[in-house]
Amino acid sequence: MSEIGEREADLGFARLDLGRAARTGDPEVVFGAGKTPEQVVTALRRLAAAHPDRAVLATRLTPPMIALIRADLPAAEVDEVARTVTLGPPPAPVGAVAVVCAGTSDLPVARECATTVRVFGATPDLVVDVGVAGLHRLLAQRDRIAAADAVVAVAGMEAALPSVLGGLIGVPLIAVPTSVGYGWHLDGLTAFVGMLNSCAPGVVCVNVDNGFGAGVAAARIARTVHRSAAAGA
Amino acid sequence: MSEIGEREADLGFARLDLGRAARTGDPEVVFGAGKTPEQVVTALRRLAAAHPDRAVLATRLTPPMIALIRADLPAAEVDEVARTVTLGPPPAPVGAVAVVCAGTSDLPVARECATTVRVFGATPDLVVDVGVAGLHRLLAQRDRIAAADAVVAVAGMEAALPSVLGGLIGVPLIAVPTSVGYGWHLDGLTAFVGMLNSCAPGVVCVNVDNGFGAGVAAARIARTVHRSAAAGA
Amino acid sequence: MSEIGEREADLGFARLDLGRAARTGDPEVVFGAGKTPEQVVTALRRLAAAHPDRAVLATRLTPPMIALIRADLPAAEVDEVARTVTLGPPPAPVGAVAVVCAGTSDLPVARECATTVRVFGATPDLVVDVGVAGLHRLLAQRDRIAAADAVVAVAGMEAALPSVLGGLIGVPLIAVPTSVGYGWHLDGLTAFVGMLNSCAPGVVCVNVDNGFGAGVAAARIARTVHRSAAAGA
Amino acid sequence: MSEIGEREADLGFARLDLGRAARTGDPEVVFGAGKTPEQVVTALRRLAAAHPDRAVLATRLTPPMIALIRADLPAAEVDEVARTVTLGPPPAPVGAVAVVCAGTSDLPVARECATTVRVFGATPDLVVDVGVAGLHRLLAQRDRIAAADAVVAVAGMEAALPSVLGGLIGVPLIAVPTSVGYGWHLDGLTAFVGMLNSCAPGVVCVNVDNGFGAGVAAARIARTVHRSAAAGA
Amino acid sequence: MSEIGEREADLGFARLDLGRAARTGDPEVVFGAGKTPEQVVTALRRLAAAHPDRAVLATRLTPPMIALIRADLPAAEVDEVARTVTLGPPPAPVGAVAVVCAGTSDLPVARECATTVRVFGATPDLVVDVGVAGLHRLLAQRDRIAAADAVVAVAGMEAALPSVLGGLIGVPLIAVPTSVGYGWHLDGLTAFVGMLNSCAPGVVCVNVDNGFGAGVAAARIARTVHRSAAAGA
Amino acid sequence: MSEIGEREADLGFARLDLGRAARTGDPEVVFGAGKTPEQVVTALRRLAAAHPDRAVLATRLTPPMIALIRADLPAAEVDEVARTVTLGPPPAPVGAVAVVCAGTSDLPVARECATTVRVFGATPDLVVDVGVAGLHRLLAQRDRIAAADAVVAVAGMEAALPSVLGGLIGVPLIAVPTSVGYGWHLDGLTAFVGMLNSCAPGVVCVNVDNGFGAGVAAARIARTVHRSAAAGA
Amino acid sequence: MSEIGEREADLGFARLDLGRAARTGDPEVVFGAGKTPEQVVTALRRLAAAHPDRAVLATRLTPPMIALIRADLPAAEVDEVARTVTLGPPPAPVGAVAVVCAGTSDLPVARECATTVRVFGATPDLVVDVGVAGLHRLLAQRDRIAAADAVVAVAGMEAALPSVLGGLIGVPLIAVPTSVGYGWHLDGLTAFVGMLNSCAPGVVCVNVDNGFGAGVAAARIARTVHRSAAAGA
Amino acid sequence: MSEIGEREADLGFARLDLGRAARTGDPEVVFGAGKTPEQVVTALRRLAAAHPDRAVLATRLTPPMIALIRADLPAAEVDEVARTVTLGPPPAPVGAVAVVCAGTSDLPVARECATTVRVFGATPDLVVDVGVAGLHRLLAQRDRIAAADAVVAVAGMEAALPSVLGGLIGVPLIAVPTSVGYGWHLDGLTAFVGMLNSCAPGVVCVNVDNGFGAGVAAARIARTVHRSAAAGA
Repeated sequence: MSEIGEREADLGFARLDLGRAARTGDPEVVFGAGKTPEQVVTALRRLAAAHPDRAVLATRLTPPMIALIRADLPAAEVDEVARTVTLGPPPAPVGAVAVVCAGTSDLPVARECATTVRVFGATPDLVVDVGVAGLHRLLAQRDRIAAADAVVAVAGMEAALPSVLGGLIGVPLIAVPTSVGYGWHLDGLTAFVGMLNSCAPGVVCVNVDNGFGAGVAAARIARTVHRSAAAGA
Repeated sequence: MSEIGEREADLGFARLDLGRAARTGDPEVVFGAGKTPEQVVTALRRLAAAHPDRAVLATRLTPPMIALIRADLPAAEVDEVARTVTLGPPPAPVGAVAVVCAGTSDLPVARECATTVRVFGATPDLVVDVGVAGLHRLLAQRDRIAAADAVVAVAGMEAALPSVLGGLIGVPLIAVPTSVGYGWHLDGLTAFVGMLNSCAPGVVCVNVDNGFGAGVAAARIARTVHRSAAAGA
Repeated sequence: MSEIGEREADLGFARLDLGRAARTGDPEVVFGAGKTPEQVVTALRRLAAAHPDRAVLATRLTPPMIALIRADLPAAEVDEVARTVTLGPPPAPVGAVAVVCAGTSDLPVARECATTVRVFGATPDLVVDVGVAGLHRLLAQRDRIAAADAVVAVAGMEAALPSVLGGLIGVPLIAVPTSVGYGWHLDGLTAFVGMLNSCAPGVVCVNVDNGFGAGVAAARIARTVHRSAAAGA
Repeated sequence: MSEIGEREADLGFARLDLGRAARTGDPEVVFGAGKTPEQVVTALRRLAAAHPDRAVLATRLTPPMIALIRADLPAAEVDEVARTVTLGPPPAPVGAVAVVCAGTSDLPVARECATTVRVFGATPDLVVDVGVAGLHRLLAQRDRIAAADAVVAVAGMEAALPSVLGGLIGVPLIAVPTSVGYGWHLDGLTAFVGMLNSCAPGVVCVNVDNGFGAGVAAARIARTVHRSAAAGA
Repeated sequence: MSEIGEREADLGFARLDLGRAARTGDPEVVFGAGKTPEQVVTALRRLAAAHPDRAVLATRLTPPMIALIRADLPAAEVDEVARTVTLGPPPAPVGAVAVVCAGTSDLPVARECATTVRVFGATPDLVVDVGVAGLHRLLAQRDRIAAADAVVAVAGMEAALPSVLGGLIGVPLIAVPTSVGYGWHLDGLTAFVGMLNSCAPGVVCVNVDNGFGAGVAAARIARTVHRSAAAGA
Repeated sequence: MSEIGEREADLGFARLDLGRAARTGDPEVVFGAGKTPEQVVTALRRLAAAHPDRAVLATRLTPPMIALIRADLPAAEVDEVARTVTLGPPPAPVGAVAVVCAGTSDLPVARECATTVRVFGATPDLVVDVGVAGLHRLLAQRDRIAAADAVVAVAGMEAALPSVLGGLIGVPLIAVPTSVGYGWHLDGLTAFVGMLNSCAPGVVCVNVDNGFGAGVAAARIARTVHRSAAAGA
Repeated sequence: MSEIGEREADLGFARLDLGRAARTGDPEVVFGAGKTPEQVVTALRRLAAAHPDRAVLATRLTPPMIALIRADLPAAEVDEVARTVTLGPPPAPVGAVAVVCAGTSDLPVARECATTVRVFGATPDLVVDVGVAGLHRLLAQRDRIAAADAVVAVAGMEAALPSVLGGLIGVPLIAVPTSVGYGWHLDGLTAFVGMLNSCAPGVVCVNVDNGFGAGVAAARIARTVHRSAAAGA
Repeated sequence: MSEIGEREADLGFARLDLGRAARTGDPEVVFGAGKTPEQVVTALRRLAAAHPDRAVLATRLTPPMIALIRADLPAAEVDEVARTVTLGPPPAPVGAVAVVCAGTSDLPVARECATTVRVFGATPDLVVDVGVAGLHRLLAQRDRIAAADAVVAVAGMEAALPSVLGGLIGVPLIAVPTSVGYGWHLDGLTAFVGMLNSCAPGVVCVNVDNGFGAGVAAARIARTVHRSAAAGA
C-alpha cells in the first residue's frame, strides 16, 4: 500500500489528509460548511504548518468563522464576497485562467473561483458582466478570453454564456451554473441543466455555485500546459 | 348567457365547439393524440363543413390517421414532417411571423408552427439552423428576423437561442423548447427551463414541442398589428 | 460588428448595456436580487442619466434597497407591494394591456406587471380577484378584458384562469403563474405546469411570479399594434 | 381477531380476500397489470363463485387477457375502451353519479369509472367533452350534473374542469387527472397537481388515470345517501 | 346568465363571492395566506354580515392576524393550533365525520379539518395517534370510526393509515397527507404519493396539510346522507 | 496492498473479480443488463470454474440470454419469472429469511430475492399476497414471519407492508419497493419513498425492484446469526 | 386479538405504545419534531416509568426541548451534537456496530446513530473522517470495521463510501445519506440515490440524515448475532 | 464581424458551419439523432469535402443510418458499439487521454469517447471494468492512468469511480455518468448527481452518456499540453 499510504493528522473531529499534495499536487482544502469556527481555525492552522511553502485555502465560510480567523490567524487573507480565506504565500503562477461571468449577481461564485485558481497555481483573469443578452459585451472581450489556457464561464438564469463562448473559442471550457434567477429556477438547477445540454461541444460542468471546483480543474489544466512547455524546452 | 352561448355539434364522442371562431376569431382545431383515425376524419369533415371559407387544422397525427385522411379527404394538405393536415383555403395572410429554429432536429416542431401560422392568418418565414454555437449564422439573419411582426424561436438542448435573439431585437418573441438533447434532458424540460429563465426580458414560452401553440399566439399578434394598421388608415 | 456594437458603461461590478434601447426599443432594467443597495442606486442613476427622456425601472427590491433609493434618489417612484422603483417620466402610452388576477394573493405579481407595462410604454388596466371558482365575477369583466390589445392573466393554485379566458377571447394572452397555494405547490410549479398545459390554444407563459417579463411582452405587443395603426394612417 | 379474521382463498399466486365484501361492502377486484391471462381468469372465476349474486370486476386488462376471458368466461361483459370486464349481475343501483369528462381523449378513463360505479351499486351518467375552453358546453350541462349524488370530473392537460365545476355546484366532487397533454406533462402529473391545488374548496382527487378508484368512492357516497334515505323512511 | 350570476362585494383588494352559499350550499371562506391582517378582518366582517345565520371561517392565519381578530372581532372563536377562526353560530350539525390522525405531529392539520367539518355542518369526532406501527391502537377504535358517515385519515411519513383503514371499513374515506417526516420527505410529498397509490380501493386525497379541503368534502358527504334520510322519511 | 490485492480474470470486455469471495464471503454475480448473451455465458462459465464448490448467479436476464444459457450451460437452473440463472450447487443453508410480498404483481421481485437468498447461503421462505388492505391475511402469517432470522418485505403501490410488519416484529427488516401501481407512481418511486419514511423504526431499504440486493443483505444477516451460534457452542 | 393487543397510555395528545417492547424487543422512542417541549418531557417521563430497567430515547430535539429536559429530568443524558436525550440505564451491550462517517460534517448524524445503537443494546464504534478521496484513511481502518457485527456508513456528497466499503468487507452494511454537499444536492437526495445505486451488492439504506433508523437496524442485527451465539452454547 | 463571420454551406435542412475549425480548432460534427439517414450522409460528405485533411465524425447513429453510410461512403470507419462513424484520416495524435470505465455496461459510452478523442487529435487509452467494488482492479491501473494528460471516468450506478480516482491522481479529470443501474436511476441522473457532488476537488462533468462531449474536452486538454511543450522547445 506504500503507493497510496499517506501521512495523516488526527484532529479528533477530522483526519487531515497531509499526503494529498504528494498524491495529487495540491494540499487538502477546508470546506467550512457544517464545521464550527474553532474546527475551521484548527484545520487551517494544521494544514498551514504542514505546507509552509504553499497557501492553504478555506471555502464556504460564515461570518463567525471569518471573525475568528481574523482574530486567531491575522496573516490570513479574507475575501468576504467569495467567502474564502487563504493562508500562506500562493505558488508562483504558471498559466492563465479566464473567469468569465454573465452578470453582477454571479460575482461571489466567480471570485471563489478566481481565488481558487490563484491558490492552485495559475493566474486568474476576471471578466465580468458579459451576458448574452448584450452580445457585443462578450464579443468585445473575445480575444482576451481566447488567450487563456483554460476558461471558466459562470452564469445563472438560462446559462447561455458557455454555449455562445463554446462556439467562439477552442480553449478548454468549464461551466459553473449559479443559483441566480427570476422565478422558478430550483436553486440553479435550470442554469445547470442548460449547461449540461450545451449545443457547443466539449463544455464540461461543475455543481451549482461551485466556483471552487471549477477553479481547481482550470488551474490544473493551465499549469500543466505551461509546465509541459517548460519541460519541453 | 347569450354572450357566451354557442352552437355546438354533438358527435357522440365529442362536442365540436362551432362557435369558437365567433368568440375568439379562429375555429376549433382537431388534436389527434388519443383519438381514433375515424374520429379525426369525422371531426375534420364536420369542422370544414361549418367553416367553408376557412382552412381547418389537425395536429399530432399518426401515420394511420394520415392514411385515412388521404383516402377519405383527398383535398386535405398533409405535412408528414409536421404531422399536420389542413383542409380548405387558408385565410388571406396579414402580417409576418419569423419561425427560427436552432438545429435540423427542431424542424418538425418549427413546421408545425409554420403551418399553424398560415392557418391562423399570417405568413410564416422559416429560418433554419441558426443555433448559437455558430453565432455568425444567426447574426447574418438578424435583419430578416427583425422585420417580422412576431418571432417564434424553436430550440432544444440548452435553448440559448431566444436569449441571444431577445438581446438583438425588440419584436415580440415566443420561445418553443424541443425535446432534442444529447443525454439527460427530461424530454425537453431542460430546454424549457432555460427559456423560462432567459436573461433577455420579455421572452414568453409554450410547452415542449408545442409549435402549434406558439403559432396561434404569433399569428394573433401579427394579424392584429396589420389589421389595426389597416383600420387606422 | 457595427450593427450590434454598442456603447457600454463599465461600473466595475457591471457593464451597463446603454445601447439596448437602440437595439430593442427599451433601456436595460436593474434586477435587484443579489446586488447591494449601493449597486442598485449606482446602476439606476447611471441608466437614468443615459435615458433622460425615458423612465428606468428596478425590480425585485429589498427594503434596504428601497430605503437607500428613497434617501439618494428622492424623485424615484416606489411601489412597495410590487417591490419596484421607477425613475424618470414614463413614455406616452400607446395601446392597453389588461392585467387580470385570480385572487388577492396574486396582487404583488400583478402590480409588478402593471408597472412594467407603463414603463415599457402601454397603459395597464388592473382587474382583480376574478378567479374561476366564482365564474360570474370573470364573465362580468369579459368585455372590458377583450377590449385590450394584450392580456396578462396572473394566477396561482391550479391556474385555471388563462384556460377559461383563452376560450372566451382571441386577444394575445400571456399567463403568469404565482407561488400561491394551499399545500404542496412547489413554489408555483403547479400553477406553472397548469398554464403550460392549457387546453385553450395560444396561451403563452412566463416564469413563476415573473410579472416583469409578462409586462415587457404585453407592452411590446400593445404598442406595436397602435404604432402600426398610426403608421398605417 | 374474529372481527377482522376472514375467509380467504389461496390460489398459490394469490390469496383472494373473500371476506372483503362483509368488511367493506364490496368484493375484491382483479387488477390485471402484472398478472398473466391465466391468473386473471382464475381469479375472476373464483371471485364470481364466491359472490354469485354480485358482479365482480377486473380492470387494466391487456388484449391477451381479454381474449382469454372471452374464450373461457363467455358470460363476461367486456369494455375494450375501458379495458374492463364484469362477470355476474350488477347490484340494483341506488343513487346516481355524474361522470363528466373534459375531452374525447379522456374517454377511456371516464368509462373505467362509469363501469366501476355500476359494479359498486350506483347509476353512472356519462357527460362527455365539456372542457372549459368552451365554457358554454359545460354550463349547458350544469343542472344535469348538479342533480347527481356525487360527481366525478375527468380531465387532462391543465385540468381546470373540477375548479370551475366546484364553483358551480355543492355536490361531493372527485377529480381524476388523465395522462393527456400537448407536450411536457409528466404522464398526467400536471393535471394532477392542478386538481390538488384547485381553488374550489372540497375537491378531492385520485391518482392519474385512476377511474376505478374514483368510481368506488363515488358509488359509495351515492348509495349511502339513498340507502340512508330509505332507512330513514 | 342568471343561473350563475351572483351578488358580489367589491372590497377593492377582493371581490367577495356573496352568492356562493346559494350556488354551492356554503359561504366563501377567507384564506389568510398572502393577505394583510386588515384584509382578513375586513373580509371576515363583510362575510359575517352577509351570512348572519351561519358561521364563517378563516384559515391559515398568522399570529398578527389572530391578534387583530381578537382585538377587532371579540366574538370570533380562535383555534391557535389549527390556525383558524370562526365567527357566528355553526349550523345545526347533521351527520358525523371521524377525523383520524396517525401521530401527535399531525394534530394541527386534523384540527383544521375538524373545525371545518363543524362550520360546514357536520359533527367531527377526532381520533388521535392511531398510527399503523402500533396496530392495536387503530383496531381498538375501528367500530367507532366505522360508525361515521365519512372518514378523514390524516397522516405523514409513509401514510399507511388510509390503506389499512380502507381495508377495514367501507365508509367514504378521504386521506390528508401531512408534511411530517424523519428525513427526506419533500414537505409531505412522500405521504401524499403513498396515499395516491393506496392499495385500498376508493381512497381519495387532498393536498398536503389541507385539512380544510378534506373537511369540506367530508361534511358535504355527511350532511347529504342525513338530509336525504330526513327527506326520505 | 496485499490485503486487498486480488486475483482477477481479464475477459477483454470485463475483469472478473475472482478474489471477492475471499474478501466478502461471496463470489461476484453476473448482472445481465447491458451485456450481450455471449458475454453473460462467458462470465458465468469463468466464475463457475473459479468457484467449483459454490453456485454462481446471473440476474436481470433477457430471453435471448436465457436461451443461450440453456443451450451452452445445460446444468444451469433457470427461473424465468425471476429472470435469474444459477450454476453449481448452492451452499448448505444456515439461517432462514422470510420473503414477504404484498401482491401477486410483486412476485418476480420476490423470487429474484428468494433465489439470491439461497445462492448466498440461507433458506428463503416465500409468503405471498399479504397486503395490508386485507390485514387478516398478514396477521395470520405473523408467527411464521417472526420466526425468521431476517425478513424481506416486497411491496408496490403505497408500500405500507413494512410499516405494519415493523410494528409487529423485531426481526431485522429489509424493504423492497416495486414498480407496481395504478397510475402515477414514477416507476416505483412512490413505494420507495413510502418505505423510506416508514413510521416503524429500523426499516432499511434497497432500490426499486432490487430483490437481489435485499437477498444478499438478508442472507448475510441470517447466516451470520447461525454461524455465530455454531461458533459459540 | 390478544397476540397483538397491547397496553397503551393515553396522554391526550398521544397514545404511548407501552407494549412495543414486548412485541418488537424495544420500547417506543420520542420523536421530537413537531411536538412542544412539554409534550416531549411528559412522553419521556411516562415511557421511563413504564420501562424502569431500560434507557428510553428522544431524538430530533430542539434547544428549547433540551433546556426543559435539563430542568425537569436532571438524570437525562444529553448529546447536543446528536440532538438526542437518553433517560435510564442502557442495556448491557451484546455485539458491536461500527459507525463509519466520511467527513466531519457528517458527525451529528453519526452520533445520533451511535447513541441509538447503545440504547438499543449494542456497542457502537465511531470511525470518523474516512472519505474515499483519501483512500488510505479508509484502508487503514478496514480490519477494525470488518470486526464489527454490523456496519453503518454515513456519508454526504456523492456517498461513495458504502460502495467502496461494500467491496472490502462482507459484514451487513447499512448506508445513511446526509444532507451535506457543495451545491445542488437537494438536501441529501444526491447522496441518497448514490447509495441506492451502489455497485456493491447488499448495501441497504435509510432516509437522509436518519442515523436513528440505521442505529435501530444495526443494533438488532448485532445483538441477535451474539444472543444466538450465547443460546447456541 | 469579420472575426466571427464564417463560410457556411446551406444544405436546405441545415447550415453547415464550415468555419468552425478555423474558430475553435475542430470541424463541426454530425449529430445523428433526429435526422434522416440521407441527411446524415449528405452532411458527412459535405463536411469531409470541406476538410480533406481531417477526419470528420458522426455520432448517435441508428442502424439504418449505418447501413446507408456503409453503402454510400464505403471509406467510412464504423464502430457499431459506439454508434459512431469517422470519415477521413485522423489527425496525428498529440497527447494521451485515459478513458476509464467502471463496468462492461459502460463500454458503449467509453468507446464513443475514445473515438472522439482520436478524431479530435489525441491518443485514447481505454481501461475497462475497474469499478470501486473491486478496488484492487483500479489500484493496479493507477500509474497507467496517472500517466495520461487528461482522464475521462465513465461510470453508472452510484458513480463512485471519479471520486476515488480524484483522490489518487492530480491529472485533469472529466466524469461521464451513464444510464446504467439496478432499479430507480432516472436514466442516469443518479450517477450524474453523484459525480456532481464528488468529494474529490476538481472533478468536472458532462451530461449522461455523453462520451462525445467528454472526448472533445479531454482531447483539447491533451493536445494543448503537448503543442505547448513543442512550442516551448
